[in-house]
Amino acid sequence: MSVIVIHGGAGAWSREGEDLVHEALRDALLAGGEVLKRRGKAVDAVQAAVESLEDSPRFNSGHGAVTTADGTVELDAAIMDGIGPRAGAVAAVTGVKHPVALARTVLDGTPHVLMVGRGAEALADEVGLERVPHEYFARAAELSGPEAIPLGEAVAARERAASETPIEEAETVGAVALDAAGHLAAATSTGGMKGQLPGRVGDAPLPGAGTWAQDGVCAVSATGDGEAFITAAVAHEVAATLRLTELGIEEACSLVLRGRVPGTGGLIGVDPKGNICLPYTTPAMARGVLRTGGKPWTAIGAGDPPPR
Amino acid sequence: MSVIVIHGGAGAWSREGEDLVHEALRDALLAGGEVLKRRGKAVDAVQAAVESLEDSPRFNSGHGAVTTADGTVELDAAIMDGIGPRAGAVAAVTGVKHPVALARTVLDGTPHVLMVGRGAEALADEVGLERVPHEYFARAAELSGPEAIPLGEAVAARERAASETPIEEAETVGAVALDAAGHLAAATSTGGMKGQLPGRVGDAPLPGAGTWAQDGVCAVSATGDGEAFITAAVAHEVAATLRLTELGIEEACSLVLRGRVPGTGGLIGVDPKGNICLPYTTPAMARGVLRTGGKPWTAIGAGDPPPR
Repeated sequence: MSVIVIHGGAGAWSREGEDLVHEALRDALLAGGEVLKRRGKAVDAVQAAVESLEDSPRFNSGHGAVTTADGTVELDAAIMDGIGPRAGAVAAVTGVKHPVALARTVLDGTPHVLMVGRGAEALADEVGLERVPHEYFARAAELSGPEAIPLGEAVAARERAASETPIEEAETVGAVALDAAGHLAAATSTGGMKGQLPGRVGDAPLPGAGTWAQDGVCAVSATGDGEAFITAAVAHEVAATLRLTELGIEEACSLVLRGRVPGTGGLIGVDPKGNICLPYTTPAMARGVLRTGGKPWTAIGAGDPPPR
Repeated sequence: MSVIVIHGGAGAWSREGEDLVHEALRDALLAGGEVLKRRGKAVDAVQAAVESLEDSPRFNSGHGAVTTADGTVELDAAIMDGIGPRAGAVAAVTGVKHPVALARTVLDGTPHVLMVGRGAEALADEVGLERVPHEYFARAAELSGPEAIPLGEAVAARERAASETPIEEAETVGAVALDAAGHLAAATSTGGMKGQLPGRVGDAPLPGAGTWAQDGVCAVSATGDGEAFITAAVAHEVAATLRLTELGIEEACSLVLRGRVPGTGGLIGVDPKGNICLPYTTPAMARGVLRTGGKPWTAIGAGDPPPR
């Protein structure tokens, strides 16, 4: 039995873009699920899913990443393999198409865990990862062509419904997986916080804060108020709660998200038995689940629970 | 009752340099202790102590920071205030005299927790923190003058005693404190790992990995195999163990260091009652304790226990 759970960020979406968000979530589930179906590794599954989400302009990662106060696009990502555990992460990198792939390169190709800025970019070039110009980033560039986000529509939607955040305020993406061999993995990728100071790094690429995977315990990926999630060590807090108390993953994730973080956001988690959770304290969280042999399940706002 | 505990890294020192290490530790204890004596804040005490350690060429932080594979000096630091908790941190910054002061600027002067590289350096310039040229860094520059580290002597010492690491392999520094009002704080500063890839960030500046402070729980600063400490979320693991089990800080620190980290190093910790611990799994750890009204206690290798 294997399962992949993904998120496309905790926040709120304009109703106009929902179909496209569901479609992007399904694509990512199928990309990760394909790896699990052929009995591949959880760490490969979460990477495939997150690369797919990074390719979509619907989320704040890769192609859809938001801009800093200087108008630059700075990307952060982490990937953690429950075996070990081992982790690879990058922060404040520019012009990398798939930040999670660069995080994976840090994991497999260096003795390090976290690399930032130009040093990380040099590593991307050394191993030949795809680089992209500033114009590649949909929220940074002049919008045109079929993939462009209808910013005008989104702004209009915001004016119509103040409670609904338009799609250009998209959020961090992530994935967690349990593979057929019982191993766990997590990955998270983000463009950071819109308007952040250049060089700011949030929780996403920090093992223990926004990303955690540990065989026998859990895999977690977070999205939300990055600074609050760092100072609550959210992802590791879930793991520690599972190891040191009698709580299960649903209770632990809910407790941590609602009781330990001075901010809002969401979490996805999976434990070694394939129990999952997807709590959020924002109006909505783009999310999806695919169990081997099952069908992709996706949701944005409240609704039916995911498949058990 | 207040107390400050510091470390100058877990590793080993050549006997030749020990007096100078003790002197530097005492200076740092007195700098931090002075703040506590006048009933100042724990966060100010740890900053003062770490700035003092950053001024010494004996440790791998600030003035004594080691070089990357490219010969550059990249500095990382974090400071965490148990009130909140709140944290500020910087990583991969160059030419900043007191990285911990820049971390404090992130804490107090921005909405962010972690800033890296040029963005963090721009912040240093904006607020007028002291910048220094590459030649300032004792291990990076041509050595001369009274502050120079006797590299030749150190190398000779290494040849004499393979079990003793010469002083140029100095380690990360840190401080934890409990102030008279009962608040906790921690700070850590490092030049990273000698020969690391440029852009590599270790555990020191990451809240939850090398640095943690949380009122009512503990303050912890770590030193050691940075990558292993990140993937064990060492500092937060100590805090979680204190909150979720019956263990005290000595048992918790020892358990985490000896049972949860796939690497060697050391920890310093203090709890809200002023109980402290300073375990290490390396041959030695430069360390010191100063309780209000007491005298500075310093040690490098094994010996008498610190004052209770």
